[in-house]
Amino acid sequence: MTGGGDCPGLNAVIRAIVRKAERHYGDSVIGFLDGWRGVLEGEFIELDVASMRGTLPRGGTVLGTSRMSPRMREDGVEHVRAAVESAGADALIVIGGEGTLSAGAGVNDAGAAKVVGVPKTIDNDIGLTEQTFGFDTAVGIATAAIDRLHTTAESHDRVMVVEVMGRHVGHIATWAGIAGGATLTLIPEEPFDIEAAVEAIARRHQRGRWASIVVVAEGARPKEGTMALPEPEIDEFGHVRLGGIGHAVAAEIEARTGYDTRVTVLGHIQRGGTPSAFDRVLCSWYGVAAIDAVHDGDWGSMVAYQGGEMVRVRLADAVAELKPVSPALYDVAKTFFP
Amino acid sequence: MTGGGDCPGLNAVIRAIVRKAERHYGDSVIGFLDGWRGVLEGEFIELDVASMRGTLPRGGTVLGTSRMSPRMREDGVEHVRAAVESAGADALIVIGGEGTLSAGAGVNDAGAAKVVGVPKTIDNDIGLTEQTFGFDTAVGIATAAIDRLHTTAESHDRVMVVEVMGRHVGHIATWAGIAGGATLTLIPEEPFDIEAAVEAIARRHQRGRWASIVVVAEGARPKEGTMALPEPEIDEFGHVRLGGIGHAVAAEIEARTGYDTRVTVLGHIQRGGTPSAFDRVLCSWYGVAAIDAVHDGDWGSMVAYQGGEMVRVRLADAVAELKPVSPALYDVAKTFFP
Amino acid sequence: MTGGGDCPGLNAVIRAIVRKAERHYGDSVIGFLDGWRGVLEGEFIELDVASMRGTLPRGGTVLGTSRMSPRMREDGVEHVRAAVESAGADALIVIGGEGTLSAGAGVNDAGAAKVVGVPKTIDNDIGLTEQTFGFDTAVGIATAAIDRLHTTAESHDRVMVVEVMGRHVGHIATWAGIAGGATLTLIPEEPFDIEAAVEAIARRHQRGRWASIVVVAEGARPKEGTMALPEPEIDEFGHVRLGGIGHAVAAEIEARTGYDTRVTVLGHIQRGGTPSAFDRVLCSWYGVAAIDAVHDGDWGSMVAYQGGEMVRVRLADAVAELKPVSPALYDVAKTFFP
Amino acid sequence: MTGGGDCPGLNAVIRAIVRKAERHYGDSVIGFLDGWRGVLEGEFIELDVASMRGTLPRGGTVLGTSRMSPRMREDGVEHVRAAVESAGADALIVIGGEGTLSAGAGVNDAGAAKVVGVPKTIDNDIGLTEQTFGFDTAVGIATAAIDRLHTTAESHDRVMVVEVMGRHVGHIATWAGIAGGATLTLIPEEPFDIEAAVEAIARRHQRGRWASIVVVAEGARPKEGTMALPEPEIDEFGHVRLGGIGHAVAAEIEARTGYDTRVTVLGHIQRGGTPSAFDRVLCSWYGVAAIDAVHDGDWGSMVAYQGGEMVRVRLADAVAELKPVSPALYDVAKTFFP
Repeated sequence: MTGGGDCPGLNAVIRAIVRKAERHYGDSVIGFLDGWRGVLEGEFIELDVASMRGTLPRGGTVLGTSRMSPRMREDGVEHVRAAVESAGADALIVIGGEGTLSAGAGVNDAGAAKVVGVPKTIDNDIGLTEQTFGFDTAVGIATAAIDRLHTTAESHDRVMVVEVMGRHVGHIATWAGIAGGATLTLIPEEPFDIEAAVEAIARRHQRGRWASIVVVAEGARPKEGTMALPEPEIDEFGHVRLGGIGHAVAAEIEARTGYDTRVTVLGHIQRGGTPSAFDRVLCSWYGVAAIDAVHDGDWGSMVAYQGGEMVRVRLADAVAELKPVSPALYDVAKTFFP
Repeated sequence: MTGGGDCPGLNAVIRAIVRKAERHYGDSVIGFLDGWRGVLEGEFIELDVASMRGTLPRGGTVLGTSRMSPRMREDGVEHVRAAVESAGADALIVIGGEGTLSAGAGVNDAGAAKVVGVPKTIDNDIGLTEQTFGFDTAVGIATAAIDRLHTTAESHDRVMVVEVMGRHVGHIATWAGIAGGATLTLIPEEPFDIEAAVEAIARRHQRGRWASIVVVAEGARPKEGTMALPEPEIDEFGHVRLGGIGHAVAAEIEARTGYDTRVTVLGHIQRGGTPSAFDRVLCSWYGVAAIDAVHDGDWGSMVAYQGGEMVRVRLADAVAELKPVSPALYDVAKTFFP
Repeated sequence: MTGGGDCPGLNAVIRAIVRKAERHYGDSVIGFLDGWRGVLEGEFIELDVASMRGTLPRGGTVLGTSRMSPRMREDGVEHVRAAVESAGADALIVIGGEGTLSAGAGVNDAGAAKVVGVPKTIDNDIGLTEQTFGFDTAVGIATAAIDRLHTTAESHDRVMVVEVMGRHVGHIATWAGIAGGATLTLIPEEPFDIEAAVEAIARRHQRGRWASIVVVAEGARPKEGTMALPEPEIDEFGHVRLGGIGHAVAAEIEARTGYDTRVTVLGHIQRGGTPSAFDRVLCSWYGVAAIDAVHDGDWGSMVAYQGGEMVRVRLADAVAELKPVSPALYDVAKTFFP
Repeated sequence: MTGGGDCPGLNAVIRAIVRKAERHYGDSVIGFLDGWRGVLEGEFIELDVASMRGTLPRGGTVLGTSRMSPRMREDGVEHVRAAVESAGADALIVIGGEGTLSAGAGVNDAGAAKVVGVPKTIDNDIGLTEQTFGFDTAVGIATAAIDRLHTTAESHDRVMVVEVMGRHVGHIATWAGIAGGATLTLIPEEPFDIEAAVEAIARRHQRGRWASIVVVAEGARPKEGTMALPEPEIDEFGHVRLGGIGHAVAAEIEARTGYDTRVTVLGHIQRGGTPSAFDRVLCSWYGVAAIDAVHDGDWGSMVAYQGGEMVRVRLADAVAELKPVSPALYDVAKTFFP
């Protein structure tokens, strides 16, 4: 099953699982539909090598996904147990981010299903693995966008603020900020001082560089008391409106400096479409390793990428806390601050 | 001089002008800085083949640009006359969109400078030329973004609304809508009926297709009385907040259908960065043709692309009215509406 | 049916035909398999909107293709007549290049089937249409490759020779040469003088520019007597080995100048994969126009792109002679020659 | 200095070194020209933050490169000592692959200069670092090419053989083979059995899959006695003609199966142009870490990427033997073999 938000490479993981399961182990594979919803309701389809053909480069997931969780239903874990049993499934491979994997750990520990996890999230915030799939693709998309914003910034001597994904950690912002040659990069791990940020941009202007790119993770927050934040906009359907912090930072920069400042919120284009070459390899490797873990009976494990090799860690440990950006890497970003 | 918003290919035009001027005609070339501002204030730099090296694939403009116009200054035309004379320029090649070119026609007709125009605008809204440069690049960027949004829409059974550039005409929306396989495309040329749009999406859902992509040009407007529009948001710096119509359409769709709906406003990434191969050729051809027009003394002309060849039209005619989307092409888009 | 070599956008044409035929006209559509082979042998599949889903961005053709022709079989035209009748087809839409369309004209004129043609070829060599589909994509791929070769040329002070497709005409070479900033571009329309080419490169070196990119269409040929050409290599399976002229030109340059020279033959990557945004629009328009022509009973016509609009021309006229590169455009390329 | 073949990201490393050196340490930086040639001959330019502006996304190297080595000159090491002293350089950062770094280790051990190394090679064959820069970009380019070849293979029911870089190790082939969905991938680490390869393709055909993609590293070799190899073609200038093994494998497949088989040799496009987002980050990190190593006086060290962090290893150890493809990863590739 695939849970949580869309992420490039989901199909590539499924395809690899199915391939090795069918051809090497002689297994039959089924896929629960729409994340935990399908598991809770026992809705699934059969998967085989033929049906997964052509899906390696395709974004999305043939299984659909949702943000449903066993925790949202009364007796959720019992529904999972019943559905898995009724489907005749010997094991459950859970492909998802922190929420999906946590629920998977819970299901495994409750003995409701034998679970192996695969870490998916474009935010790259799962612990004990250097990289989750989808992240490399997201960084590539964000960098390509920043490349394009540079020339607009330069042609108009503008400050361009780019808000990228990253609610709790700033991996995408840090990587795309360095790769895109950002003037400043603001991440949740390190609350920012808007005054210092504005001074840095002004310092750059004094050196004759009028255009700046400021990359802001959507979860970046100012040091307390340094800057007013807008109330989060919640629309009539309960969605928090994206774009909050990017617009707030831009407004502060423009108000404090008078420099012409514009905002781009990259949004959903970071999470869809064909996976990068790296992500396709990582996903294929994850899928193969996940079905191997199933055949080793390594329940409650998550496949993880460490030091260029595939290893296994405990699901519960991996989701125990979000993985922050390496301070050494954020220092690389800072090397290029004015 | 290059005026108006940033646009991929500006450097490619300048490079071609300089190359043919210097190598073929033995001219010296100067470039006024920041659009009409530099012309008004007599600020320019020298340009030669060596200084334009490597700029073909680079977005932006080595000359900078602005939205300044001779019309914004008292005696603007006289300032232009003085600056052009003082710089010793025999002719002025004006590279820009409707506003810049109109001002160029005015300057030419007032005898303040001998002007040749080159049609630049990602919106493709200049008359008498099939294509302005920058448009093909913008369509490519918007299509790549829509490609990525498809998988997110499908993974989550969502309606994704994508707002693209096009204040007065819907060329980018129509092209990217067809190229991206949009469910619906809304353009300024044809005020839309929100109820009909919602019914079309519902019809699609009844056929079992739950995900939809709705492409909306930023200038698209509903038929009067069919839908409330938000007041345009003007921020404290006088900018109209982008994203107005996209968000309004999404809110209507969600309110009337209950389908999960999200918005992406592509914004400035459509107008920066490296030009497409087509735009690089078009720009090189425009540049060569513009300096040829100068040497033919064809003042008040604009180079134009018609029927696969380069021709000349009257600047004043080209900007007389905006060029709308061909109804036949918009019918192609409609072929794919549900 | 789709005939000849693979070309980006074939599926997009089929999808548009099927969509308009089924939804607008209420037709049933079948697709003959593997080009003329399927027509000759009466092998076809049913096509509908559902089966064409997701194919817009996908390269290749769901129908397969071949280089078979009715002319290669005895009574070929009669086999076509029998197969079309037996399949109950009222009309035959032929999507292909010069060979496929010529055969289509023959079949139509013999009264064996009612034929409408769609011009496909990455070479862009069909007459009476400004653009065939696949060409824009091929130019984009070739340009991206040339962009990459530039830095290698510059880092090593090398001459890089790039051979691109174009057996009879040099459209891809001319467009990609201009877009890629080539030093020289050699095309079949204008036999080249190797001595003049070498002198041009030497002139550039004297100006301190050590790296050069020479784009060569595979069909480019030297002026008689100026340069020895290798015997065409025919391998044991009867294929002519590509790369002939590129390697020959490189050897001459290196021998005559001593400059370090390398060759890249782009080959098949130019003709596969996802179509560009432009090609997707062109293909969708061609498909819609082709089924419209069928319903107008305009037999023997070919849909064509002229002046930004879709028109119809006579198939026989379109294939009467190959369309050469516009001399004005090749002059633009020459503007950048040293 | 930058040595060896062109590689995406060279400028990004130089830019990071210069930035941190100038802004953080207050150093002056010079760059020797054309690899070891410039060091041997004492030819260099001054580098500063201003001169490196805009080079992050640009392929190539502002310093030029060559395959020269101190070992190729009598008293080479002494020339290096003299040039470094005469230039007043306190340390020498050597950016290159196995050959360049080995020479750097030699120069350091001889006390001719204080050396820190940065591992560059698109082949990813340097030891003790998980990734060299340029590799991720090369894999991306090769994967994009394979994506395009798929549709041509499928449209024509062909076997496409793709030869990619990798003289001694098969990292690019393995990664691009998995990412591109190759049918078979042949690498130097594991001599292949042509008969087994042909049988695998035939097995696939029996399952109704007629098109195959075979990725071959240029250094792949058959098990002895299983297949005749062409004599390496050495042209009149002493270059070994690329494309040898790809063409040989294709000829064997076609001869043994009769399947229509074509070859594409990707060649130099794999090593030029803009670096991927990942490579830009890796290069920036390498550059910062290299100048830090200089200020730590860690002579004879090489910066290396291990486990998601930057570390230092001994130059001599890193080049002691080439790093092969992880057997576990090659097993992932094999999972998809027929």
